[in-house]
Amino acid sequence: MKQNIILIGGGGHCHSVIDVIEQENKYNIIGIVDKKELIGTKVLGYEIIACDDNLEELFKSCQNACITIGQIKTNEVRVKLFDKLKAIGFNLPTIISPLAYVSKHASVDEGTVVMHQALINANASIGKNCIINTKALIEHDCKVKDNCHISTASVLNGGVVVEGNTFFGSNATSKESVNIYGFIKAGSVSK
Amino acid sequence: MKQNIILIGGGGHCHSVIDVIEQENKYNIIGIVDKKELIGTKVLGYEIIACDDNLEELFKSCQNACITIGQIKTNEVRVKLFDKLKAIGFNLPTIISPLAYVSKHASVDEGTVVMHQALINANASIGKNCIINTKALIEHDCKVKDNCHISTASVLNGGVVVEGNTFFGSNATSKESVNIYGFIKAGSVSK
Amino acid sequence: MKQNIILIGGGGHCHSVIDVIEQENKYNIIGIVDKKELIGTKVLGYEIIACDDNLEELFKSCQNACITIGQIKTNEVRVKLFDKLKAIGFNLPTIISPLAYVSKHASVDEGTVVMHQALINANASIGKNCIINTKALIEHDCKVKDNCHISTASVLNGGVVVEGNTFFGSNATSKESVNIYGFIKAGSVSK
Repeated sequence: MKQNIILIGGGGHCHSVIDVIEQENKYNIIGIVDKKELIGTKVLGYEIIACDDNLEELFKSCQNACITIGQIKTNEVRVKLFDKLKAIGFNLPTIISPLAYVSKHASVDEGTVVMHQALINANASIGKNCIINTKALIEHDCKVKDNCHISTASVLNGGVVVEGNTFFGSNATSKESVNIYGFIKAGSVSK
Repeated sequence: MKQNIILIGGGGHCHSVIDVIEQENKYNIIGIVDKKELIGTKVLGYEIIACDDNLEELFKSCQNACITIGQIKTNEVRVKLFDKLKAIGFNLPTIISPLAYVSKHASVDEGTVVMHQALINANASIGKNCIINTKALIEHDCKVKDNCHISTASVLNGGVVVEGNTFFGSNATSKESVNIYGFIKAGSVSK
Repeated sequence: MKQNIILIGGGGHCHSVIDVIEQENKYNIIGIVDKKELIGTKVLGYEIIACDDNLEELFKSCQNACITIGQIKTNEVRVKLFDKLKAIGFNLPTIISPLAYVSKHASVDEGTVVMHQALINANASIGKNCIINTKALIEHDCKVKDNCHISTASVLNGGVVVEGNTFFGSNATSKESVNIYGFIKAGSVSK
């Protein structure tokens, strides 16, 4: 039977995550948490049912949560939310699109979402609260630490280490075995 | 039962479209329309059976058509053909590779072909007579208007609007929520 | 029944190839050949059972081999090994990930490995002893000659010819119908 889940954040990234959760078919989205003034409106058919102030209350009826706020300029909001949700007691499951491929020799930690057609290859490990975005490629032996956003169609080649809180831009590429941290521009090559 | 279809244009892009139509397995390719002097020759096993002058005649025996001419320097030929085929009464079905993914929250209009491993994410909309080429990524909330070619492995990030008649080059990337128009170079980043 | 195979080279690229062979499920990996001092150690659970000096001996018990050494700076080692293995009598099968797509109108020669989510489109041909790496795109009508490495997520557009011994870098892009040879940088555009 499907478990219930609530989504935190009703913007554009949320649209993509809804698509992944629907395709994964493991969780039943019971509503979205966003700003107070948006309560009652809908996002792809799912209602905004609460705001951040109601999280403790929500926890009584639903123990699974997924952070669906995007991460471009900063991941501060995502990190604070992750800590707050954990403190309340929420379970933040790993969400993996059935269109993605995660090697059985790889690992993905809690609160991380692996979007459609992303690929995590053998012996790679992904930390907590990351976004591995659509079509991103994490090659063999990479280590992506906590709270990173590996953006759409970007390429981390073999053996790369991505430090925590990194933004690796859309369609960016890294050389093999390098260290990545901070804010990496879309389309750039990290050497 | 499979319906019949004719392809208009027997060049390189036609090879890729034949592969998509064969994999999709919804249409039976009964022949290709190209230059008069090529009639009788074959393209991946399918015969060139007519030239542009014979389209009215062809329509009597086959009501489905797919434009398989590519679009790099200009889309003028594709646009004229689309109008001519519609005027004759042809149906220009949307062709979607079974290896592509189109979100159920997205829409794709007539005469558009979505090639292998392309991905059209939630809440995106694609206009008429477009090529969404192999491995292209159209992220959530994008709006691609009519007669565009979104080239191979290119990336339109969330909320981008692509004006009609745009060429978005191979492996090009766009930032989120920008407006794209005209001719965008391969490998470039649109901000 | 699955046939036995040995892998030559136990580094990072080997991790990715193991993942492909396991998913393909056609070959049973009986061990890895690497440096003498590594014999007895394990790579993703498979034992290093021999070094290069033992290849003739190994051939008596296993006739299939796959070169799992990567190719970045030079392909010299891979080419020498290929010739040596062939001279001993080894069969070097084409390995194709079930997550890749190879058009039925395309061909892939012996000793070539097509990694996860790579795509080889209609009328393309790939030579011997190549790596078509993860998520690489080889478009319609391309001709990739022997001993090439088409790196991760790179894009060869329609009708491109890649001369033998070429390294085409990660996420690099080529224009249509150009000639490619030598060492092409990651993220570059070949015109």
